[in-house]
Amino acid sequence: MELQFLGTGAGMPSKERNTTAIMMKLLDERGTMWLFDCGEATQHRILHTSLKPRKIEKIFITHLHGDHIFGLPGLLGSRSFLGGTEPLTIYGPRGIKEWVETTIRISGTHLTYPLFIEEMDEAGIVFEDEQFTVYAAWLEHVVPCLGYRIEQKELPGALLIEKAYELGVPKGPLLGALKNGADVTLADGRVVHAKDVVTSPKAGFIVTILGDTKYCDQAIQLAKNATIVVHEATFDDTTAQLAAQYGHATNMEAAHVAKHAEAKYLILTHISARFLPAQSEALAKQARTVFEHTSVAHDYISYALISDNDIVIKD
Amino acid sequence: MELQFLGTGAGMPSKERNTTAIMMKLLDERGTMWLFDCGEATQHRILHTSLKPRKIEKIFITHLHGDHIFGLPGLLGSRSFLGGTEPLTIYGPRGIKEWVETTIRISGTHLTYPLFIEEMDEAGIVFEDEQFTVYAAWLEHVVPCLGYRIEQKELPGALLIEKAYELGVPKGPLLGALKNGADVTLADGRVVHAKDVVTSPKAGFIVTILGDTKYCDQAIQLAKNATIVVHEATFDDTTAQLAAQYGHATNMEAAHVAKHAEAKYLILTHISARFLPAQSEALAKQARTVFEHTSVAHDYISYALISDNDIVIKD
Ligand SMILES: [Zn+2]
Ligand SMILES: [Zn+2]
Repeated sequence: MELQFLGTGAGMPSKERNTTAIMMKLLDERGTMWLFDCGEATQHRILHTSLKPRKIEKIFITHLHGDHIFGLPGLLGSRSFLGGTEPLTIYGPRGIKEWVETTIRISGTHLTYPLFIEEMDEAGIVFEDEQFTVYAAWLEHVVPCLGYRIEQKELPGALLIEKAYELGVPKGPLLGALKNGADVTLADGRVVHAKDVVTSPKAGFIVTILGDTKYCDQAIQLAKNATIVVHEATFDDTTAQLAAQYGHATNMEAAHVAKHAEAKYLILTHISARFLPAQSEALAKQARTVFEHTSVAHDYISYALISDNDIVIKD
Repeated sequence: MELQFLGTGAGMPSKERNTTAIMMKLLDERGTMWLFDCGEATQHRILHTSLKPRKIEKIFITHLHGDHIFGLPGLLGSRSFLGGTEPLTIYGPRGIKEWVETTIRISGTHLTYPLFIEEMDEAGIVFEDEQFTVYAAWLEHVVPCLGYRIEQKELPGALLIEKAYELGVPKGPLLGALKNGADVTLADGRVVHAKDVVTSPKAGFIVTILGDTKYCDQAIQLAKNATIVVHEATFDDTTAQLAAQYGHATNMEAAHVAKHAEAKYLILTHISARFLPAQSEALAKQARTVFEHTSVAHDYISYALISDNDIVIKD
């Protein structure tokens, strides 16, 4: 799993930061990618990466403000131009379906793949399969705005096959039974215990990607024990009143969310253009006084999860 | 008048060419700018120029394909963020109003200026004031698509004020009468003829900006005697069949339009990504075998009109 930021700005694009888009690469896990929000020119950012639009399987929209959705129609069309044939599902608040469908109709956009749009009225499970559960909850913004929590299910332990052979387990169905956690009895009557030949299951990752929001309890709940929490930081301490007024958060509030949630790693994004690129590190440094493992994202930065859910930054 | 190309590609953006947008700067003439089409990320291109979105007075849309309109909502919103308060009018084919209004409503975009949207069902005069007449006509594309002809009205001659004084004309209303073309009688009975103290009126420019189209007669009519004609050239000779099939033109067809229209200068744009940047000059060179004054546009190039309607390229 790798999280690549394609847009890390707030409200409107600047030369340095485009409007919001975050790509979750699940290439190892499922050969696809999930996109969170899609500000205008997300497809232009993609042109400067190795990302393939046809690999996008799902797009999760936090809310309907233009800086989070105006890149959607162009990306949908280009996914066709670029040979996309696999289905695509968009999740988001009510209104996303009318807008996408109206736009496709009026612009005569031709899609070469099935497009599904699921609107959410209530918090809860958005998607679930054998690998992942995605939860959504309402945050506190000036319009209905969702946060998403992506939970990878427990990864089954690995069968230590050489060790099984040493213990006399023959090739065939007994190996499968052991891998599934069953103890087996060999032809000679000996019992081989699964725990001796299968490593313990590994906890999956939890990534929480929050839309625009004030400091709120729902954010903490969604981020509970998360491996990574992505929180907006449109403002800082000196402009905290503006943050509250416009339904946004400061870097310090984001740090408090991560701390209360006992998360492992915090990434700040949705940074106002009032902060010059050189000031980004100061935002992170200040947040670290509350929550140590904090990073400020910039466009194109990538956070890769490695073994034991450690994070490596690819810059 | 200066024509700056913000997007010169076809269908979808590439690293080199964004989707269509052409800015007509009328800063000397009226202190404003007129935009022709607005592909996604037009506002991002503007960030790398000195253009001010609040100076955009009119936006003319040729047709509703995504590569010509998907940048519109973001630009409308940013024009507010950036302090725009002057009215803005959008002209385009039927459907543009529903799309823009639906998008503004669903995205909660707040505009700080009056927005007018005029849909055209018939060819004819789109706009006229004391300076300009804008005509539109239907071209031949796979969806209804307009071409625009912007005619600057004749510029009145300049009063040679020192010469008028030499001939004994006093300061005051007689000077104004002469400037307006009237002959005047002085207190001493002498007659001063306007033609002796006012330079002859100057013809205005004619710029024809065509949307996506096959080779067609309406294009020639719209481009008649134009100072500049902007014609699409999605394909070239080797792919002329594809051009006809998809309602597009080749560089050679564009050259024939300019030739038959007896235009002065031809700019090719809407160049397919199949042509590498290095091939652009070849497209122009080939077109010049039919119509000498031909240029291929690229993103950010600017064509400025100087005295006697000559053109200077700012690259
Ligand atoms: Zn936002
Ligand atoms: Zn086009």
